[in-house]
Order: sequence, then C-alpha cells, then structure tokens
Amino acid sequence: MTTAEIAELVSAQPGPHAVRDIHRVSAFADATENTLVFAHDDVAVVTALASAAGLIIAPLAATSNDPRILRVRNPKYAFALCARALAPQPAGPLIHPSAIIYPSSTIGAGTRIGAGAVIEANVIVGADCTIGSRVTLCQGAQLGDRVVVQSGAVIGSTGFGYVRNTDTGEHLLFPQQGTCIIEDDVEIGANTTIDRGALGETRIGRGTKIDNQVHIGHNCIIGRNVIIAAQVGISGSCVIEDGAVLAGQVGLGDHVTIGKGVIMGGASGVFPHKRVEGPGQMFMGVPAEPLKDYLKTLAKIRRLK
Amino acid sequence: MTTAEIAELVSAQPGPHAVRDIHRVSAFADATENTLVFAHDDVAVVTALASAAGLIIAPLAATSNDPRILRVRNPKYAFALCARALAPQPAGPLIHPSAIIYPSSTIGAGTRIGAGAVIEANVIVGADCTIGSRVTLCQGAQLGDRVVVQSGAVIGSTGFGYVRNTDTGEHLLFPQQGTCIIEDDVEIGANTTIDRGALGETRIGRGTKIDNQVHIGHNCIIGRNVIIAAQVGISGSCVIEDGAVLAGQVGLGDHVTIGKGVIMGGASGVFPHKRVEGPGQMFMGVPAEPLKDYLKTLAKIRRLK
Amino acid sequence: MTTAEIAELVSAQPGPHAVRDIHRVSAFADATENTLVFAHDDVAVVTALASAAGLIIAPLAATSNDPRILRVRNPKYAFALCARALAPQPAGPLIHPSAIIYPSSTIGAGTRIGAGAVIEANVIVGADCTIGSRVTLCQGAQLGDRVVVQSGAVIGSTGFGYVRNTDTGEHLLFPQQGTCIIEDDVEIGANTTIDRGALGETRIGRGTKIDNQVHIGHNCIIGRNVIIAAQVGISGSCVIEDGAVLAGQVGLGDHVTIGKGVIMGGASGVFPHKRVEGPGQMFMGVPAEPLKDYLKTLAKIRRLK
Repeated sequence: MTTAEIAELVSAQPGPHAVRDIHRVSAFADATENTLVFAHDDVAVVTALASAAGLIIAPLAATSNDPRILRVRNPKYAFALCARALAPQPAGPLIHPSAIIYPSSTIGAGTRIGAGAVIEANVIVGADCTIGSRVTLCQGAQLGDRVVVQSGAVIGSTGFGYVRNTDTGEHLLFPQQGTCIIEDDVEIGANTTIDRGALGETRIGRGTKIDNQVHIGHNCIIGRNVIIAAQVGISGSCVIEDGAVLAGQVGLGDHVTIGKGVIMGGASGVFPHKRVEGPGQMFMGVPAEPLKDYLKTLAKIRRLK
Repeated sequence: MTTAEIAELVSAQPGPHAVRDIHRVSAFADATENTLVFAHDDVAVVTALASAAGLIIAPLAATSNDPRILRVRNPKYAFALCARALAPQPAGPLIHPSAIIYPSSTIGAGTRIGAGAVIEANVIVGADCTIGSRVTLCQGAQLGDRVVVQSGAVIGSTGFGYVRNTDTGEHLLFPQQGTCIIEDDVEIGANTTIDRGALGETRIGRGTKIDNQVHIGHNCIIGRNVIIAAQVGISGSCVIEDGAVLAGQVGLGDHVTIGKGVIMGGASGVFPHKRVEGPGQMFMGVPAEPLKDYLKTLAKIRRLK
Repeated sequence: MTTAEIAELVSAQPGPHAVRDIHRVSAFADATENTLVFAHDDVAVVTALASAAGLIIAPLAATSNDPRILRVRNPKYAFALCARALAPQPAGPLIHPSAIIYPSSTIGAGTRIGAGAVIEANVIVGADCTIGSRVTLCQGAQLGDRVVVQSGAVIGSTGFGYVRNTDTGEHLLFPQQGTCIIEDDVEIGANTTIDRGALGETRIGRGTKIDNQVHIGHNCIIGRNVIIAAQVGISGSCVIEDGAVLAGQVGLGDHVTIGKGVIMGGASGVFPHKRVEGPGQMFMGVPAEPLKDYLKTLAKIRRLK
C-alpha cells in the first residue's frame, strides 16, 4: 500500500508525508523502510523514529514533525486496520481438499475451510468465514458472515444435561436437539467448545470474540461484542449481555446473567441463577463481588491476627 | 411412534388418550400436533395445554383431564426416554470413509465412527458406540458398549509423570505404558482428555458421564454413574467413587479420593492425598469444606471490620 | 536388553547379577522374569523380591543380596531410562499417509507425524520429533529436535488481542503475525494450545514439559525445564523462568513473571503485571502468597467467630 492509501484508510491528518511502499506492519525491532509501526505516546514516537520504520502511526498530539509520522485519533486501532488491509491472502484453494463437508451443508462465497476440518450435516456457513484446520462444525450449526473459527474448536456439540433414574442411579441424556447459532464477525479460539441448545438455541451475538479453550454450555445466549478470554467456563442457560468482558478462567454456574458491559476479573466465579450488573464495573473473586469490596476483603483477611 | 407405543414406553397410567402420530419431542414454543412435550407441574401443564403439542407427559398428580395428557412418575425422565426412542438414525455408513482405523484395532457391531476420527493401534471399541468426528482413541484404549465420545476428545493419551535429574534439572518421562478402560454407557464430551495409566490402568466406570474439556490424569479410577461437568481437572491417581458429582472447574490434586455420592460444588478444590466423604453432601471452596461451613466462613469474612 | 546392558545404562554398582533378557519395565503386579521393576526403599525391595520380576532396580542402600538387584543412585530415574531404552518402535511409516503437510514446511529426519495431523505452511519441525494424531502445527511454527506433541494440540494459533472501537464497541484483531518457537526436548500434552506472538515471538524453552489442556497466550517466554500441569492458563506476555513448576489449573494474568524455580500450587493465581520470586518456594491461593502465609491465613479464617 502507498502512504496515501494508508493515510486514507486510517483517516490521518493531512500533511507532507514520506512516500513509501508499505508491505506489512511490524514491531520496532524488525522494522524496515517497507514496514509500518505505531507509537501510542511521545516516548514511543522517539523509539519509532529511531527505528528503520517507513511510516509511523502516532497520536494527534505527537510533537515531532518527521514526515514518516501519520497522526490519528487511535493509533493502535489504526495500526490494526492497516494490518488487516496488508495481510497476505493465504495461498491455495478456499476449501482444502482434505476438509470433509457433508453434502447437506452449505458454504458461503469466499469462505475458507482448513485442512482436516469436518462440516457435518445440515450446517450453514456464511460468506468470507475462516474455518481453521481440524475444526468441527457439528450437525445443524449455523454461522454468519466473516466468522473465524480456529483449529480444534467444536461448534454445536451435544450439551451436558441428564435426568437421573432415582431407582438405579443411572443418568439418561435429556434431549439435546437444539441449534447453535454464531452471528456475523464472531471469532472463536483454538479448542473452544460450544454446545448446541437442548430444545432451544445457543447463540453467540455479532462481533463477540472468544479465546482458546473456552466452554459454552447449551442454551447460553451471548450478546454482541462480548470478550471471553481463555479457559472461561459458562454453564448452561447463561445470559451474557452486550459488551461484557470475561477474563481468563472465569466460571459461571447455570442460569447466571452477566449484565451489559460488566467486567469479570480473572478466575472469578458466579453461583447458579445469580445476576451480576453494573456497566463498566469490575467484579472479582468467588463468589464475585465488586473490585472495591474484593480488595477491602482481601486487605481485612491479610490483617487477621 | 403412536400414542400407545409411547404410553407403554413410559409406563403411563391407563386412560383414554388422544391418538397421535408423534415424530419428535419439542419445547412448548415449537410444538406441533406431532410433537411431544413434558410438564413438571400443574403450572407447566397449563402452558403445555395452551401449546399445539400432540401429547403431554405430566406428573401423576396432574389435575387436567385433557386426553393429550399421559401421567407418569417422572415426566422429565419419561420425556428423555421418548426423545431417545424418537431420535432419527444418522444417515450414511456406520464408519465414515475418512476415519482412520489402524488394522490392529477392533470395532464392535453397530458402532459409528465419525469423520476424521483416528483409532490408533490395538484399540478395542465395543458395540453400538458413537465415536464423534475427529476423536482420537490412542493406542491400546478399550471402550465398552454404547460409549459416546464427542468430537475432539482424546482417550488414552500419555500421562504427565516425569523424574527430575537433580544434576541437570532435566525431566525424563516416567513410563506411561498402561491402559485406558472406558466401561459401558460412558459418555464423554468434546475436547476432553483422558490419560492412560503409567504402569497400571485408568478406568472410567459404567454409566459415568463426562462433559467437555475435562482432564483426567493417569491411573485415575472413576466409579459408576459419576457426573463430571466441564473443565474439571483430575490429577493422577485419584479415586472418584460411585455416584459422585463434580461441578464445573473442580480441581483435584493427585491421589485424592472423592467418596460415594459426594457433590463437589463449582470450582472447588481438594489438596493432594486428601479424602472427601459424605454421600449426598455438598462441598465448596478451596480447600473444599461442607457447604454449611463454607457459607458460614463466607458470611464471617464479609462481616470483617 | 541383557542384564549387562541395563547395568551399564543405569550405572549400577558392580556385582554378581542375575542374567536375564529384559523385554520391558512393569509394575510389581504384572512382573515376569523378563520385566524390570524398581523399588524406592527397603520395604518396596521386599515386595519386589516377592514378585516375579527378572531384575529390580534398588537404592544404593538396599540391604538384600539377591542377585536380581541392581543398585543405583536414583532408582526411579534409572527405571525411566530403561523404559525409554526398551520402548518398542511404533510400526508403520514415519509420516502417516493421512497427515497433511503443506509443501512449504520442512520435517527433520526421524520425525514421526501421526494420522490426521496438519502441518500448515512454512512450519519447521526438527529431527526425531513425535507429532501425534490430529495435531495442528499452525503456519510458521518452529519446533526443535525431539519435541513431542500429543493428539489434538494446536501450536502457533492466532493470539487473543483486540483493539476496541470506542465509537461502536466493536473489537478489531490486533495483528497476530509473530512466531511460535518450541525448543528441543519440549513435550506438549493433548489438546493444549500455544498462541504465536502478536508481533514478536512466543517461545517454549528447552526441556520444558507441558501437560494436557494448557493454554499459553501470545508472546509468552517460557524458560528451560519448566513443568506446567494440566489446565494451566497463561495470559499473554508472561515470563516463566527456568525450572519453575506450575501445578494444575494455575492462572496467570498478562505480563506476569514467575521467577526461577518457583513452585505455584494447584489453582493458584497471579494478577496481571505481578512478579513472583523465590527459587524452590511454593506459592498458593489467589492472589498467590507463600505457602506458609497461605496456611496461616487459612487457619485464621477457619478460626473466625
């Protein structure tokens, strides 16, 4: 991309910019005249200028007049935009010949299916998705557009619901015949598992991002633009509202609701049927309490005689 | 199935029943005259009667005289029985052509092997099992009849046992050459891993149900009809006795014993070599204590000044 | 192997040893005259002598004069050495015909690739590695020599780093184009996931052993001879120094440093950007504190009125 194309993509402030051909984004350490770096403050700008980088994305308030600098409102976001635009298209066919796609499934235009992936019966995958190597989309799963699923993830598995025979102690599977719906722009990490609904649906809302080894049980309804970090475990029938953030290893009992914009700290936990609310508020501990209370409690415990 | 067949299957009380052809079980919301629903109490019976459902499984005490009602002792269990009986047989061959089965392994009659599954050397799989897409049964694993293994699970992997060379700090694998035995009617979730024994065996007892992303270390002996929810981690050489229940994210150190019928609450933990006992008793926290004590402790901490 | 060969391998004390042909190592229970067992103390030596074992590896201080006994400094280590030497070579070709290896990747001599494994573009695998069934080595991953990766593991997946668009609440992937380097003699368990660096590298140091279902985020630098047990979650940009031990389910926030030789107890946790230090010292709890303090705190809490 040319400097002009990049400046337009990131809505950079106009100015006399160094003219470069940019091939990729890079860190300072391996920058070249054909790479783009970003600096989040003036200290970073100094480091960036000392590097070989061809272009530098910097905050509006950057004080240097070096022509390699493009000023933008959010340098990190602009940098990510450039990275996406500059990313090389993978070589080879869209659908790897070793992928197994049941004939009753449909795959949208521009969707890539990786080696050894299995798309079971009656699956619908939208357009421009990236299904990684060795992903399983179980029967009946429905994916929107631009969904990314990384290697080893299993989407639409059978939920864990049993009815106990009180005479024999044996457990009989409650029907797990619902659906698993993944909306547009959802991204799902490696070896994550998402169960389909028992009778109804499991739904992951538009733009939600899910890390590796996350477990989402049957009938969960996850809102839009939710962030779920690695190894989070969400029991059946939970509701996670829009924009919530769950840090690593959070655990939720069944039927928990996490309100809009709530931030659950790492390894925090919520008991079944509870509701946690407060947009932008952080909760910690097991059972989770507001960060302020958690820290107070911690301090009190440490003071105990 | 006809009304008469269903009434017999669930041991319904005799009565003049509406005659219907039932194709599947359903929730109230998507019920039709060809679906069966269940109601666990009189309030649910009212909702069920207002739905389009062709048949309703209800408690013995249900007061309505609607002919769509079949009275049974445990409606939810009866409903699950019907769901199993009505479940459509998957189409296609029993063994997906893309499954890789080493010639030294044997597969029982009626067993289904999913796409991309790998059955390594000297594995024995019983009859009527369902091995999901992309499952690995590692060398020497032995499965009984009617075992279900979901996609991505790895059964019989190499255990994690090392001997440290105190001169160099390096670790040498202790031999992991034992077996991994999965008894009849065990069901195992997606991306779960079960290690084989080091010298002896790892054993999962008959009728035990295991959720997604559970880890079971080498030489564990799991009893019968145990319930293990998602992301539970069981270190090597643990014993879980019959009918115990481990909620999500429970963690057990090595050589722990969980007694018959014990219920371990979500994310609770037990230190190595400890024993937890009390049939039907619930334990919570790390280290786990009886629920009553746990709640008392929690209340005391919250009261601290 | 002959008695003489084994005695030499384990540097046994000279002596008139029973002459046996040893085929494998075994537990006492299934010992035969062609198996080797080990005893870590005099009580175990008595049991070993009562078994059918052909040879017994025992401590230097063992008092029996039975000619089946070989005296060594570290019986368990010597036993593991013998097990490795006696392990049968798996049959079949080194590279299973169902493995998918992109043409731009290179595989070292003597390396075994299991059924259904996927080696993506530009991967480098060293010599004498064992890549299990259904492993994914993502594009650009670099493995040293004698690396073992068990079934279902994903090495070099895309990291979890997003930039939030504060106007829309949407999240945009920060570039995840770095590398994932696995040094010599690293062993990685089933269904473990290791993300590649965002811009820089993720690195697992020589001789480090990683259990099943471990998650290691982007840009982590793990030292040499580190032990990481099952279900540990390590957020991005953590540093784990040489010889540290992380027990099961440990959770580390981002940018955490675990010092040389530190032992983190099961399910303990460290907040982001913190440093834990003390060679050989054990830490417990969330947030983690030295074992002594943790036990004191626990006792105080239990004493609360």
